[in-house]
Amino acid sequence: MTDPRLDKLANVLVDYACAVKPGMWVGILGDVATLPALRAVYREVLKYGGNPTLFISDEWMARTFLREANDDQLTWLDPSQSLYYEKADIYIRIGSSNNTRAMTNIDPQRVQKVNAARRPWLDQRLMRSANLDFEWVGTWYPTESSAQEANMSLEEYEAFVYGSMFIDHDDPAAKWRELSAMQQLKVDWLKGKKQVRLQGPNAELELSIEGRTFVNSDGHKNMPSGEIFTGPVEDSVNGWVRFDYPSIVAGRAVSGIELKFEQGKVVYAHAESNDDLLQAQLNTDAGARYLGEFAIGTNFGINRFTGNILFDEKIGGTVHMAVGMGYPETGSHNKSAVHWDMICDMRNDSTIHVDGELFYKNGQFVV
Amino acid sequence: MTDPRLDKLANVLVDYACAVKPGMWVGILGDVATLPALRAVYREVLKYGGNPTLFISDEWMARTFLREANDDQLTWLDPSQSLYYEKADIYIRIGSSNNTRAMTNIDPQRVQKVNAARRPWLDQRLMRSANLDFEWVGTWYPTESSAQEANMSLEEYEAFVYGSMFIDHDDPAAKWRELSAMQQLKVDWLKGKKQVRLQGPNAELELSIEGRTFVNSDGHKNMPSGEIFTGPVEDSVNGWVRFDYPSIVAGRAVSGIELKFEQGKVVYAHAESNDDLLQAQLNTDAGARYLGEFAIGTNFGINRFTGNILFDEKIGGTVHMAVGMGYPETGSHNKSAVHWDMICDMRNDSTIHVDGELFYKNGQFVV
Repeated sequence: MTDPRLDKLANVLVDYACAVKPGMWVGILGDVATLPALRAVYREVLKYGGNPTLFISDEWMARTFLREANDDQLTWLDPSQSLYYEKADIYIRIGSSNNTRAMTNIDPQRVQKVNAARRPWLDQRLMRSANLDFEWVGTWYPTESSAQEANMSLEEYEAFVYGSMFIDHDDPAAKWRELSAMQQLKVDWLKGKKQVRLQGPNAELELSIEGRTFVNSDGHKNMPSGEIFTGPVEDSVNGWVRFDYPSIVAGRAVSGIELKFEQGKVVYAHAESNDDLLQAQLNTDAGARYLGEFAIGTNFGINRFTGNILFDEKIGGTVHMAVGMGYPETGSHNKSAVHWDMICDMRNDSTIHVDGELFYKNGQFVV
Repeated sequence: MTDPRLDKLANVLVDYACAVKPGMWVGILGDVATLPALRAVYREVLKYGGNPTLFISDEWMARTFLREANDDQLTWLDPSQSLYYEKADIYIRIGSSNNTRAMTNIDPQRVQKVNAARRPWLDQRLMRSANLDFEWVGTWYPTESSAQEANMSLEEYEAFVYGSMFIDHDDPAAKWRELSAMQQLKVDWLKGKKQVRLQGPNAELELSIEGRTFVNSDGHKNMPSGEIFTGPVEDSVNGWVRFDYPSIVAGRAVSGIELKFEQGKVVYAHAESNDDLLQAQLNTDAGARYLGEFAIGTNFGINRFTGNILFDEKIGGTVHMAVGMGYPETGSHNKSAVHWDMICDMRNDSTIHVDGELFYKNGQFVV
């Protein structure tokens, strides 16, 4: 009855990504639309001896909440969830959509109010995770809505989603370990390096990674993953870059983005569509005009753009950069309310040199 | 799109039954199968200023848990739920079934182990409720499975369910207040009375209510409700009674039950079907052979037996008695792991005399 790919996905999440052990308190989060995946994960958590808590949500209720709740309600912190973030061991979130445009007409200020109020939950999760006191992973469940957003049938989209997670392989975890080992070699090679230079039809850009750390993103926090990322030295970025793939912000696609940097700062920005949104994002705060992230996507299971950043930013043969907030574990100091990933194709006539040495050519590592 | 009866039900639960006030912490519990009702209640809680926490469950996961969890998992108490029972203000539970026989082959000892472990949650709920520190109500959402159990189509069953809750009236809460006022008159009249005598084709029974209290069950804890109940003096019950309606225990229907009492104790018991189950229940512990409850059903919106005790025990024109555990608020001292309600039709040639005065005749109060 159940899609057998869900059982394999559940095993990857529970065993590979989170390493559930007997007695651990495991939160399982997802919309009712993800029920088949929630069931598979629930059963796998039991099998590994974990104690599951279900946080099943519903897009209709979430929307009703954002539309109708008063200020006290919008900013209320559920004590049982606060306790969970304080004490639990693991967080497994199954994302999904019933309608990618369902929130289009919700006042973004109300969304921000909720996010600001719930910020302690996010901080606690990230802090405890950094202290190795908490494991988390977020994944994605294919629905008709997401397939529609990606211009595919559900069957095609399912094949895309599970393909990106290596679920179509006999032993997906072995594939993830293999990718992880390959990425670790690159991360190790990059240690102590200083200067990165991108050249090609879409970029002519230099940035410094001196003193910064590349993170090996290998499916432990995001499923799928497949990227190595760092935070560049804030004032070191110079040159220009064009982002081929549209970037989706608040349900609007900003496409044909071009940025010019001088001493780290975006001094020129233009988008072919929804340029106003691009300008507004860059003007959010001081950090929004600086790069918080530079990353190389390595997942060749993801072979097309689908408008979902979880997948898009890992497309093998692309790099992405984010304006705004940087991740402290990379050494980045950039702070901002914005973290906006933009994706640049490097598969044609493109190179990355590191400290003058050819590191990457036409979408492939060469060291 | 939504069944408008659900919005009326939500209002009865939130306003009439639980009196949700701004800032209150309100748990909303139900299976994914009850989603339309969960949504209606969630929205109504928001409207009344409450802070809802969703506890959405899934019968498949509950069954998987009972079948596959190890002992540590079976007896684990979710800290976030413990906190909820300790601190929250309101509990609204929407019962349902996807398959009334889904649990038939689950080992009852495993179910008992879970129930025993979670007993503190029940105790906390009842204790805080007795201290007026916590409100709770349980209701029922109609599904195909429950309709099938009741030998009806879904449409017929929905009409039955909402009819029993007076949702088909313009102002259901007004109907509940009316029933409550009627019941209160009977409860007041019964104060200080001593001897109850049932006579008719199904009963020839005496019991004492001296020093005991009748409770006016008017839709605040059960929706639907419609009964007045007490706990008889334990050793005062003498005579015999036949229960016309089958009693369902652990998915098995025990029908044609006849009991004989001497000085409160069941000294003879026979069932036409599943007699072994009846005997096993009565042999559970010392309290299982004594009555813990005597009650009169008053809900004439419930006009047929459906195999669901929430409805059956309130059928207008019936009385019911429970062997086993009695409710402390009635003055009952009877303790038992069993509380088994059995329903006796009083609509034909039947009377109840109280201290020698005719109190009830052929299913109707006469005082």
